[in-house]
Amino acid sequence: MRNLEVVVSPALLPYYNVKGKAVVVIDILRATSSMCVGFKTGVEKILTLASAEECKLFKEFNFVIAAEKDAVKVEGFDLGNSPFEFENPLLAGKSIALATTNGTKAIKYAEENGAAQIAIGAFLNIDTLCNWLNSINEDVVLLCAGWKNKFNLEDTLFAGVVVHKIGFNFKIDCDSALSAQLLFEQNKNNLEALVRKSSHAKRFELKHLNTDDIKYCLQFNTANVLPTLKNNYFVNTL
Amino acid sequence: MRNLEVVVSPALLPYYNVKGKAVVVIDILRATSSMCVGFKTGVEKILTLASAEECKLFKEFNFVIAAEKDAVKVEGFDLGNSPFEFENPLLAGKSIALATTNGTKAIKYAEENGAAQIAIGAFLNIDTLCNWLNSINEDVVLLCAGWKNKFNLEDTLFAGVVVHKIGFNFKIDCDSALSAQLLFEQNKNNLEALVRKSSHAKRFELKHLNTDDIKYCLQFNTANVLPTLKNNYFVNTL
Repeated sequence: MRNLEVVVSPALLPYYNVKGKAVVVIDILRATSSMCVGFKTGVEKILTLASAEECKLFKEFNFVIAAEKDAVKVEGFDLGNSPFEFENPLLAGKSIALATTNGTKAIKYAEENGAAQIAIGAFLNIDTLCNWLNSINEDVVLLCAGWKNKFNLEDTLFAGVVVHKIGFNFKIDCDSALSAQLLFEQNKNNLEALVRKSSHAKRFELKHLNTDDIKYCLQFNTANVLPTLKNNYFVNTL
Repeated sequence: MRNLEVVVSPALLPYYNVKGKAVVVIDILRATSSMCVGFKTGVEKILTLASAEECKLFKEFNFVIAAEKDAVKVEGFDLGNSPFEFENPLLAGKSIALATTNGTKAIKYAEENGAAQIAIGAFLNIDTLCNWLNSINEDVVLLCAGWKNKFNLEDTLFAGVVVHKIGFNFKIDCDSALSAQLLFEQNKNNLEALVRKSSHAKRFELKHLNTDDIKYCLQFNTANVLPTLKNNYFVNTL
């Protein structure tokens, strides 16, 4: 039986072995949600980068550049990190260079440590993701991007939904998987209210951002896409 | 209002600020539980050390030496890490040099990073601990020792009980505190069964250890002690 593990912060990844495994990167608010929306809109490929500075270099190669810092769009960029911005039909067929605070670092780390496959998970594509996870042969690591390497609620909750949905197909010897599953199952009728109590939601309010992003990112199965990493780019491999 | 945070692994401590704060080290199975039992038995002081090798050096200075590795007593030592061993009345008035896999590292880290006070938490002394936390002036960090830097269930559950009991006196902007609290509150009638599903409990079974340790360590308020660090030693400061 394959193994399934949940890693609650990229900073804990060194204590897990990702070599040869399928790693799902989770950054619900908002990088991985927005990536799913982008592919639904018809984006061709997404390059994730560790910083806005690197991102900017791709402007001259006709990339749409997207960067947020502390949940706000960086000045001079085409897009920030809100899923609503990724719904723009003008993005169809385009390449996006995306920098995010947390998600990109998690992706880089998984890549550098020999993950066999790297996919993007969000509520928006959850069943597509779960079907794929059931179909492959690798052990699975659900990697929460967190917030500045801290544990965060919405990513852990999402990992819990995945464990809830496919856990019975796996051997689970991982307390964070068990805890995430309980956290979801015991709060599933109350997800949005719970996430609104999270530290991320509080930062949203602090910055007077559109808190509709939270409601948007907690929708199930609105984007039937499977972003996976192929030759440095995320593409929709569904 | 003071802050209360929960850190689910010592490896995440670098992303929190412990300087000037009161840090509670939590290693329910079994270091911090056994320390509480030891002080209840009348142990004078406990020196926590990072390795069994360092521990051994203190034998000639009349210390009782205690070390476990991967949940088993190290050969040649007086004690392992089971709370039952710390009930022996012969330990009254003695000094113990204790090495543990996880707890000691967490304590060292908090000490080196300027924690104002370091206390030991376990179900066994929870109300004594909570009363103390309510009485002091510092912000509070609940530090789960985890297992080899991974998230673990029993330490997080315990942190959740503390948040449940004293959280209303604090400002909480910490998703792991929120999650730990929910995990406890939604499973409080079922704690032992839940902890028996944890990876730590599975290791206990694997090694044919006395799983009564689990039941023992989940008892509330059997040890009315407050171990805190004073000049390199833990002493009962109640």
